[in-house]
Amino acid sequence: MTTNWQEIDLFAKNLIDRAGETIRHSFRNKLQIETKSDANDLVTNMDKEIEKFFVEKINAFDSSHHIMGEEGYGDQLTSMDGVVWIVDPIDGTMNFVHQQRNFAISVGIYEDGVGMLGYIYDVVLDELYHAHKGHGAYLNNSKLEMLKDVKLEESILALNTTWVTPHDRVPYEVFGPLVHKVRGTRSYGSAALEMAYIATGRIDGYLTMRLSPWDIAGGKVIIEEVGGIVTDLFNQPHTLLSKASVFAGNPAVHKIIYEHYLKEKLPKS
Amino acid sequence: MTTNWQEIDLFAKNLIDRAGETIRHSFRNKLQIETKSDANDLVTNMDKEIEKFFVEKINAFDSSHHIMGEEGYGDQLTSMDGVVWIVDPIDGTMNFVHQQRNFAISVGIYEDGVGMLGYIYDVVLDELYHAHKGHGAYLNNSKLEMLKDVKLEESILALNTTWVTPHDRVPYEVFGPLVHKVRGTRSYGSAALEMAYIATGRIDGYLTMRLSPWDIAGGKVIIEEVGGIVTDLFNQPHTLLSKASVFAGNPAVHKIIYEHYLKEKLPKS
Repeated sequence: MTTNWQEIDLFAKNLIDRAGETIRHSFRNKLQIETKSDANDLVTNMDKEIEKFFVEKINAFDSSHHIMGEEGYGDQLTSMDGVVWIVDPIDGTMNFVHQQRNFAISVGIYEDGVGMLGYIYDVVLDELYHAHKGHGAYLNNSKLEMLKDVKLEESILALNTTWVTPHDRVPYEVFGPLVHKVRGTRSYGSAALEMAYIATGRIDGYLTMRLSPWDIAGGKVIIEEVGGIVTDLFNQPHTLLSKASVFAGNPAVHKIIYEHYLKEKLPKS
Repeated sequence: MTTNWQEIDLFAKNLIDRAGETIRHSFRNKLQIETKSDANDLVTNMDKEIEKFFVEKINAFDSSHHIMGEEGYGDQLTSMDGVVWIVDPIDGTMNFVHQQRNFAISVGIYEDGVGMLGYIYDVVLDELYHAHKGHGAYLNNSKLEMLKDVKLEESILALNTTWVTPHDRVPYEVFGPLVHKVRGTRSYGSAALEMAYIATGRIDGYLTMRLSPWDIAGGKVIIEEVGGIVTDLFNQPHTLLSKASVFAGNPAVHKIIYEHYLKEKLPKS
């Protein structure tokens, strides 16, 4: 039986829309939020509530679909066989707590390891980035253009300051020269939104040390649909089954950074 | 004669609103933008157009007012005597070019060196942060709360990666420990928006090496109105007449960072 991706696409968009409304509604209950003693509790509750919602609805939709989610209500997967939903109910938790903006719902739907549908929903701005493999990528109803080549010295990278200070994962001599070479760096605190920014050409690369499958599963489909590249820092595919480093970018920028700044300069992790 | 600040406030808001509409309109002329060979040219033109608009209108409104602007259409000032408008037509130029978002119009109006009115207008989100000294600070029509004490380990700082890599302005040993102590760091690429984020409590501190008066003049008024602190990295007031480092923040976070991470650790500039 062929998988009906158009049907799944409509179903997924409806779930995301409803989850977004739940989150936006939670902001209106201002007193309720403020009476919580620890703001992180609230997030955990909202994270859990949204993920439970996804799991219940997806199970009812097609019980053969597998689900991997940050909060653990889904399945413990050891392979990407079949149809797999990879869900991050709130990507950018710290922003959610501190800012009530700059976070996103991220969903990627894979079949036998191939990314078929990807969604990143900026709940506050009501901006849905979405892609169906082979059918284009969109921001709401506007089709995203294929990424054009960008020169490294005219590029903007997303890169957290943490990775530039001395730490145990990577020699800080690796990123210093890169930071000085590019036009600028940014850090938004949501992997999903940083990947959406790559897909729209607002930034040209995103480098980070350690992300989970749900941080990147949606963005990977969207970026690849506009010709971008998503690998780890060693230019290898992310398995989507465990944590790994991530290096996503415009194809020209990805290539030159890997060749000149990363290759043979990183310790094997 | 007493200065009529309510009248100036209404006038300034009207100018900002009209300037924002001009910028938004420029995005709709997509072909016109794309035919420019160098994207930076466009920005310069828009920067200049908006600043000229401010200068002409302010001169017509009250010719005794002085104007300091990034593009140089205003006056060359050597003192802050009288009423001084400090205008940045587009703060976050790189974002304007690359992203068509995450930039702002910034305006500060001072009398004899005292910040009386401050505005930061996020043109794309249609969010106006504004304050009138002694009359409160607002995001659009919502009054901003006074900043509450935040613990350093629960704070988020805006800090560009550039300042953490080895460079000539500050030993990179200074910021490394700070980056590891706080909950997280961000970098948005617009000083004005980073200051608006402090005023709303979305971030708790912003540190940077070298900014011009127009980058901070509007934000300083807004931050101070909610109890925040704006100094240079040496805990001294910014003169608003020349470039200097900037350290803005929540009062508790500003104090502890200055005392424990900056005091006697920075080279005199």
